[in-house]
Amino acid sequence: MNQSIRNDRPTVGIVSPGDMGHAVGRVLREHGLRVITALDGRSERTRTLAAQAGIEDVGGFGELAATADMVLSILVPAEAVAVAEQMAHALPVRPAPLLFVDCNAIAPATVRRIEGIITAAGGRFADGSIIGPPPRKPGATRFYASGEHTADFARLNQFGLHVLVIDGPAGQASALKMCYAAVTKGFTALCTELLTAAEALGVAGPLADEFRLSQAATLEQINRALPGMPPKARRWVGEMEEIAQTFAAVGLTPQMLAGAADVYRLVGETTLADRTPEEPSPPPTAQEIAQTLAHHVYATHKKEPS
Amino acid sequence: MNQSIRNDRPTVGIVSPGDMGHAVGRVLREHGLRVITALDGRSERTRTLAAQAGIEDVGGFGELAATADMVLSILVPAEAVAVAEQMAHALPVRPAPLLFVDCNAIAPATVRRIEGIITAAGGRFADGSIIGPPPRKPGATRFYASGEHTADFARLNQFGLHVLVIDGPAGQASALKMCYAAVTKGFTALCTELLTAAEALGVAGPLADEFRLSQAATLEQINRALPGMPPKARRWVGEMEEIAQTFAAVGLTPQMLAGAADVYRLVGETTLADRTPEEPSPPPTAQEIAQTLAHHVYATHKKEPS
Repeated sequence: MNQSIRNDRPTVGIVSPGDMGHAVGRVLREHGLRVITALDGRSERTRTLAAQAGIEDVGGFGELAATADMVLSILVPAEAVAVAEQMAHALPVRPAPLLFVDCNAIAPATVRRIEGIITAAGGRFADGSIIGPPPRKPGATRFYASGEHTADFARLNQFGLHVLVIDGPAGQASALKMCYAAVTKGFTALCTELLTAAEALGVAGPLADEFRLSQAATLEQINRALPGMPPKARRWVGEMEEIAQTFAAVGLTPQMLAGAADVYRLVGETTLADRTPEEPSPPPTAQEIAQTLAHHVYATHKKEPS
Repeated sequence: MNQSIRNDRPTVGIVSPGDMGHAVGRVLREHGLRVITALDGRSERTRTLAAQAGIEDVGGFGELAATADMVLSILVPAEAVAVAEQMAHALPVRPAPLLFVDCNAIAPATVRRIEGIITAAGGRFADGSIIGPPPRKPGATRFYASGEHTADFARLNQFGLHVLVIDGPAGQASALKMCYAAVTKGFTALCTELLTAAEALGVAGPLADEFRLSQAATLEQINRALPGMPPKARRWVGEMEEIAQTFAAVGLTPQMLAGAADVYRLVGETTLADRTPEEPSPPPTAQEIAQTLAHHVYATHKKEPS
């Protein structure tokens, strides 16, 4: 029996329609697909985002699994396994088993664990990963996919997403994401830490002068990357830990990325991280972020700042 | 009694005339100063570099301390304290005490330790740090200085060096260097690790494609930064550890920079690090470095590379 999705216009489930998920759902809606989600117990913000994107709330995971042809898991990394387990419990037996696509920023080992959970429950699995911002303008966001059931997922290329299938089993798409996110989010963490250290040590002024002289491009990158980071910092903690685990699994040091997780955990301890991406007031500058963190660390650790 | 250097043309001692030290000595020589060093027990390469730069070998630290008006300590970070102790033992009692300028990439706490060693022995101390490459072309290299005795060190501005005095006690010039080096060498370590991981995981090809699409500037930085890194990797281990210590002292995570030290230690385990900066053959590409490291890690750790 051919298990692939027969429906010309697959119904796509999205868990959960947060910042990234609702933007993905909106694209698919705008390209004519029915997009559903399960919002029992979710926040008012998530409900509002879903409604604005035209994503239909079917209630619980049971209804979602019974109705969707495929489900895209788009979550905070730390929730990926738990949600896969909930979906697995809800999977109905049916002629064309549900395709579960894990799109999260997680280690290949975590992907393989989720693959085991889904296939043991009779579902089909594909590994996905997202590179780029929530897809609000065409061409900026790519979905990578690997594993056995990527062809069905790649059909979303007809409905506004950009899906690239790469060689290899489930885990490879996520491996790619891990290496990519290491440079972007690792660099942002590194800069956040050293600017905070410069404030704490009392050398922020001369450092800024020296950066203007000899690191103009880096300074520009810092000023572009840091202001948008705080609302994402708490969710990036888990992502950095997944990268650390990915690197350790091939014999490389986990410490750089474990340290990046520490930096985002620190940001998450402050009110900086309470901003939502929808907040209309201007975001903090890199300098303001560093000063806030330096004060927070000083107050928390009771260390002499210089 | 005014203890500052009276000689219009101070005699400058340099320990040791390695890659950076001999270039600094050459600049001072070319601007008419007598530049001396103590090469008892040093390598043939160091002797050759010193001779080429016109730096005079006076033999041991006793002769150096007796002859120089100021000594610049320019070393591998791990040697900074030991050499300061040797200099302290050699310091003669004299009307204008020797000025010892620590120019190494070390933590403020290490600077203060060295300051204690030198001043307890009757010497004068200034904290210095070097930002930029060995000074072969004007304008590319800056010496930062802080502490009580910076004025004498800043006189080298008349002899071809660019010395900038910053506010604060000994330790501040080095604090600035620590924050600066965190971004340059931390970023290089991060990129070295993630490219190695991509090779080990079998996603180097798609990652390079994605970098060309969305991280062209980063890719350019990688291709500029990595090829020159291996000959310096072993000496950067200690520098990364000094930065980790600097950050920990103000309550920030030491892990990112401790991880960077791990990465440079790994590079140092391979023949990549046996190159000298004078080696005429073309340096390895970023890809070749990553492939060499991935093979080394695979062979050493006996882990499955994907």
